[in-house]
Amino acid sequence: MPSSVIDALKAHYQQLSQLTLLDLFKQNPQRAKDFTLESEGIYFDFSKNNINEQTLELLLNFAKQQNLAAKIQAMFNGEKINNTENRAVLHTALRSNKESILVDGHNVMPEIKAVRAQMAEFCRKIHSGEHLGYTGKKIATIVNIGIGGSDLGPVLICQALKPYRVAGMNIHFISSVDGYMLNDILADVDPETTLFVVASKTFTTQETMINAHSTRSWFLDKTANNTAAIAKHFIALSTNTQAVEAFGIARENMFAFWDFVGGRYSSWSAIGLSIALYIGYDNFDQFLSGARVMDEHFSQTADLRKNLPVILGLIGVWYNNFYDYHSLIISPYNTRLTRFPAYIQQLEMESNGKSVNKAGEPLDYATCPVVWGDSGINGQHAYYQLLHQGTQVVPMDIIVAASDKFSNKEHNDILWSNAIAQAEAFMTGKSYETAKAELLAQGVVQESASEIAKHKVFSGNRPSNMIILPEINPHYLGMLIALYEHKVFVQGVIWDINTFDQMGVELGKALAKKVLQDIESRQISEHDGSTVAIIQHYLNQTTQNKLKS
Amino acid sequence: MPSSVIDALKAHYQQLSQLTLLDLFKQNPQRAKDFTLESEGIYFDFSKNNINEQTLELLLNFAKQQNLAAKIQAMFNGEKINNTENRAVLHTALRSNKESILVDGHNVMPEIKAVRAQMAEFCRKIHSGEHLGYTGKKIATIVNIGIGGSDLGPVLICQALKPYRVAGMNIHFISSVDGYMLNDILADVDPETTLFVVASKTFTTQETMINAHSTRSWFLDKTANNTAAIAKHFIALSTNTQAVEAFGIARENMFAFWDFVGGRYSSWSAIGLSIALYIGYDNFDQFLSGARVMDEHFSQTADLRKNLPVILGLIGVWYNNFYDYHSLIISPYNTRLTRFPAYIQQLEMESNGKSVNKAGEPLDYATCPVVWGDSGINGQHAYYQLLHQGTQVVPMDIIVAASDKFSNKEHNDILWSNAIAQAEAFMTGKSYETAKAELLAQGVVQESASEIAKHKVFSGNRPSNMIILPEINPHYLGMLIALYEHKVFVQGVIWDINTFDQMGVELGKALAKKVLQDIESRQISEHDGSTVAIIQHYLNQTTQNKLKS
Repeated sequence: MPSSVIDALKAHYQQLSQLTLLDLFKQNPQRAKDFTLESEGIYFDFSKNNINEQTLELLLNFAKQQNLAAKIQAMFNGEKINNTENRAVLHTALRSNKESILVDGHNVMPEIKAVRAQMAEFCRKIHSGEHLGYTGKKIATIVNIGIGGSDLGPVLICQALKPYRVAGMNIHFISSVDGYMLNDILADVDPETTLFVVASKTFTTQETMINAHSTRSWFLDKTANNTAAIAKHFIALSTNTQAVEAFGIARENMFAFWDFVGGRYSSWSAIGLSIALYIGYDNFDQFLSGARVMDEHFSQTADLRKNLPVILGLIGVWYNNFYDYHSLIISPYNTRLTRFPAYIQQLEMESNGKSVNKAGEPLDYATCPVVWGDSGINGQHAYYQLLHQGTQVVPMDIIVAASDKFSNKEHNDILWSNAIAQAEAFMTGKSYETAKAELLAQGVVQESASEIAKHKVFSGNRPSNMIILPEINPHYLGMLIALYEHKVFVQGVIWDINTFDQMGVELGKALAKKVLQDIESRQISEHDGSTVAIIQHYLNQTTQNKLKS
Repeated sequence: MPSSVIDALKAHYQQLSQLTLLDLFKQNPQRAKDFTLESEGIYFDFSKNNINEQTLELLLNFAKQQNLAAKIQAMFNGEKINNTENRAVLHTALRSNKESILVDGHNVMPEIKAVRAQMAEFCRKIHSGEHLGYTGKKIATIVNIGIGGSDLGPVLICQALKPYRVAGMNIHFISSVDGYMLNDILADVDPETTLFVVASKTFTTQETMINAHSTRSWFLDKTANNTAAIAKHFIALSTNTQAVEAFGIARENMFAFWDFVGGRYSSWSAIGLSIALYIGYDNFDQFLSGARVMDEHFSQTADLRKNLPVILGLIGVWYNNFYDYHSLIISPYNTRLTRFPAYIQQLEMESNGKSVNKAGEPLDYATCPVVWGDSGINGQHAYYQLLHQGTQVVPMDIIVAASDKFSNKEHNDILWSNAIAQAEAFMTGKSYETAKAELLAQGVVQESASEIAKHKVFSGNRPSNMIILPEINPHYLGMLIALYEHKVFVQGVIWDINTFDQMGVELGKALAKKVLQDIESRQISEHDGSTVAIIQHYLNQTTQNKLKS
């Protein structure tokens, strides 16, 4: 990393960290305006952060020295920026309307558009009743079988857009290999009216494939072994034609995607078919076009100082690498975004949770923080205690929709007043003197007030971003997700890491195969003493307890 | 804090941190045995931690100097250990069979047992059909209206124990003030067969009360304004008789609890009534007695070196205060425990997210870490990348049930092999040499293998605990939750903080009232410039968009 820029940022940190957020507001009466961006309908207030104009200037310098602008173009143009896997990174192409994007001289847009058309046509058939279940009934339930990127996106997006669903359509998700989850969901669905969507690029993902096969067995059991019916009730989101056909899925019901789409960036691809089946293809198309608006903002229209993903990303770097705040909380104030933190958690941590740079050299600085969170209003009654009065500072992204036609005004006003007030409280805090005066005003006697007030002090100076969407609809949800995708990209460029591989998931997978072999054969191979003892404990327990086989 | 103990721990850390977990296993072939506890059916392997016998000895010394044993007795005996609120802390009494526990010379056990009997009797009436809905139909759906401690416990426990539910019974939870959540759930329930359980100690919690009142309006709307029917369909978990009766709830359908029960410790109290209605009172009683077994283990039978909550708590302190690992992940490998991390997140962070000691003096050491997590097997496909290869170390608690009669053996074997293999992978890691040799064996050419292997290195030496329950049933779930309750207590004693208040939630609540007033009156009072601008933005948006009123 360019050391002069870093040194300048370090020196600036030494100065700026002497000032509180309230000091910064006092210094600049225009601060709220200076540090709010309004673009494409999104209102992004980042004024309650420990930054000033100089901070941004230095951070933008840093970004320039890391060639951010050129790297953005490289991604959008299909260059092989996923260097360890020698792949292009083109989730943006999935929502593009361009005629041509070349990868190795090959135009990928025609095949992307062909799959979109295939998805639209399949949705039309399902929703019109042209494609019926094996007994002639209309499909009324989708069961998405997938894990990780094939699960979190569809879960979030279907939950967030439930009010837009096709009338009468239900959706369930089987992700964990835990047989209870499978049995619990299958107990609730009707084989005659359910479509199972098996989402696995390679058709070999361990969890997904055992769930798919167990579901297939259940289905055959329920249909008196009607193997022909499988073609009407199972579809595949995969590229492995042979395995898909062997499973009994018709070739025309296989929806392809490509190696330039990572799992955590795949909701825009055929992986989104469950979403499109649930909310209708037109709404899915709105979701794509919302993301496209953000793509254009990020890569074409906005200069770096006014670029939402750039600013959001740089603020994160500032806290992570200079303030040493190593966790980030995402707090949506809207029930429909309850799974948004889980989605962003994967997006950020799987993308940027790396310890070597693109060249493979070990880093001497921190990369991705722990990203976590849940519904904000619920968090207030749970973990916000630590955020206000704990010993570590956790920067927060508050996400809220201004209007919600599926709520009620009185409820929405309360929800909003809480979102706003929490950001204010984190920043302003409360002094010992104020706390004591309040206690005295409540009639607490002097001596008690002096003691209890010590526990009612809030240090304040805790930062937050406020991201306001006009409403939660397919368009703005697409924009919001794309905003974070590009934020992650920006940080990956700053940290000089490959954001698009995930080598860290391999070791556990390999060892799991070995342990499974030990369990199945009841022969324990070589491990540390603890692992051996635990395998033995499991074998002892399962001998004592008869499980369904 | 006693500085000699801390100095000894610091010196020990300097030595021990030179050794990896694998080194420690090499040093002591009996390590797995030495650092595994089996008690009351729980198998707790803590050998994959950066500790040795000396670490434990020093940490136990620390606990002794903090008078842990005496403080445990003080809690169980009803002393007013919640010093800032001058209250006893007696969630343990809620599951006790003792004849007498005195608070201020008053025996609380008779009233605790009376509420238990009232709960059991109410469950009998609902389940037998003696208490019917207003049109004479049996109650088939419970809707729990509560937030924080009145929500997270019932949500977790009902989800975990769904296979034990009373036949035909459903349950829903309304927690957020977001009107969408309310409308979405009310759209799915039948007023004739639904019982609404309003859980708010004071009957003034803002979110809960507006949800309760909106539900009441919906109910009256559906029943042609049948106010008498309210008594059959609404019950209250509260101590505010006057407000409860004004709402229209019959006095006999009000279930009380006491100021010695904190919200996050209240599932064992009348707050558990939704649970008992869902799983039946006998199962709820098993849940209580499971916790009682852990209470006895913690306070009576186990010496500190063999005491599950003590060891679990001390290991957390070791990482938090000596290794500077400031986040903890909870990874249940069981779908039914998916909400367990959220429950423990509240329990730990609301209890111990404090910055002053019991005397109100500012601390110069870290207290509670950020606690987070989700289903472990799903995490493997999401955020485990960072846990394996990121720049920060996150200690993990893995929780798994040995046997699961509601699963299938093949699925359970795979689930288990993953849980075991992840712990192994975190500890062992993978060297550059091994990674390169594997690539060469796969046929990758020398030059590429040398480069790519750099990205496939796992540092290893990442710690985890393994907590194995025989199965997930009411008994063991009660034990598991009590285990963490006591772990939190142990850490509070070490950190010398009041674990049982939550002053940090007050400021946001107070400011929210002010902001709400601004919104309702459309007159913005004094705030920082950012807060003013955001309130104005909201007012502008809601003027443009007509919401349901």
